[in-house]
Amino acid sequence: MRIALWQTVPVAADAGEGLARLRAVAHDAAGQGAALLVTPEMALTGYAIGCEACARLARPRGGEYHKAVAAIAREAGLAIAFGYPEAAGGGARNSAALISANGDTLADYAKTHLFDEIDRAQFLAGDALSPIVELEGWRVGLAICFDIEFPEVARALARAGAELILVPTANMEPYRSVPLRLVPARAEENGIYVAYANYTGAEGAIRYCARSCVAGPDGEDLARAGEGEALVVADLDRLAIVRRRAAIDYLGELRPALYRSTS
Amino acid sequence: MRIALWQTVPVAADAGEGLARLRAVAHDAAGQGAALLVTPEMALTGYAIGCEACARLARPRGGEYHKAVAAIAREAGLAIAFGYPEAAGGGARNSAALISANGDTLADYAKTHLFDEIDRAQFLAGDALSPIVELEGWRVGLAICFDIEFPEVARALARAGAELILVPTANMEPYRSVPLRLVPARAEENGIYVAYANYTGAEGAIRYCARSCVAGPDGEDLARAGEGEALVVADLDRLAIVRRRAAIDYLGELRPALYRSTS
Repeated sequence: MRIALWQTVPVAADAGEGLARLRAVAHDAAGQGAALLVTPEMALTGYAIGCEACARLARPRGGEYHKAVAAIAREAGLAIAFGYPEAAGGGARNSAALISANGDTLADYAKTHLFDEIDRAQFLAGDALSPIVELEGWRVGLAICFDIEFPEVARALARAGAELILVPTANMEPYRSVPLRLVPARAEENGIYVAYANYTGAEGAIRYCARSCVAGPDGEDLARAGEGEALVVADLDRLAIVRRRAAIDYLGELRPALYRSTS
Repeated sequence: MRIALWQTVPVAADAGEGLARLRAVAHDAAGQGAALLVTPEMALTGYAIGCEACARLARPRGGEYHKAVAAIAREAGLAIAFGYPEAAGGGARNSAALISANGDTLADYAKTHLFDEIDRAQFLAGDALSPIVELEGWRVGLAICFDIEFPEVARALARAGAELILVPTANMEPYRSVPLRLVPARAEENGIYVAYANYTGAEGAIRYCARSCVAGPDGEDLARAGEGEALVVADLDRLAIVRRRAAIDYLGELRPALYRSTS
């Protein structure tokens, strides 16, 4: 399966602009043969937009954002995992959805690990990890930014069958070690693919780390963006997962009773 | 606290030679001001020595190896974490012990995650993670080689209070990503120090990766050996842990109920 990550500058609390830019890049990705496009965190609106804009721009699961992205997915002919502010629980959650090329919603997920004051001021936390769903024969889960820094998240998704974790992110300086070390570690220690789609440029005082990547089941970069805007394309190979697990089967070698006894 | 890692070629199933070399390097490390010396996995005897040599050379906890290392520790005036074959359960375990500068045994641990056929042919697995013990005011745990590749091990030790994990290892090609990516990830994702003491050179068909390291609580190298024999010295700073956790408190942000629900 060929996938594409959209490394872009954030829009400024403008969902119309976010959707217009998504439409353009979806056609670009489809033109390059991608079956899936992954956006950064909150890509429809921008990430550091503040509490008031979050409340104003938040929409429910299955609402107008899902319908608009479904139309783009059908029109371009590829699946799309997109980030948006979700109206839920009387506030906004930091969410992502995976829409198939047919326009069906395959998965909805709200970020469960809020990062520092910037997340806590804007969002309510989700209360469950992502479902694992099938896309083009691949078992796929979602995580958002800070979530993937916790090994427990990728491990739980991998043990539930995920072969590929899609991670919309808004990873900022000075946390460059996340795309360069922790994301590849998550892929390696589970023998899966992790696709991490980050912003570039600035948003208020934030400077984004860029460096979006697809890490393979051996932890090595299958694709890696530099500093600027980019559409990162990578071809995933399920045999690479099989080969890796034949060499080192971290999931099979787990001894869960041991970890409970100490923690 | 200043610590030293002994990156060396393995001895050939000769505990007398292993102890003689340990004595020499312990004096060297103490002369450089180290309060603790960490050896590779099974350093007293060599690692890939075969089933028969393991059985012949295995000694119990508190037995002659502990007594001999205690004498070296007292003589040189520093603590020593050493690897050895442990006689237990009618076979050999792949074990490590931490001996204080006074010669007291502070911790005993048997490797819980056996690596592939080479470990399974030689060893029985341990049945508990390391205790956390105090050394020079630091809370310290042990792990051995393959153990540290599982994020659950470092997490359990860190949640039990470890600020420093000592890892005797026999990490071989082509698994260079372990010292270069996974070990630093364990330090970063827990906000702790990880000291990983590897062999260099060859042992039978095995070629060791060397690259022993001390990774700090931000995941960066505090010290890193190259390819050859080396005594790696690093000064640990508990304030670095405090500062890191003030920036990102991964342990405090855990949501254990979420991980159970999916796995």
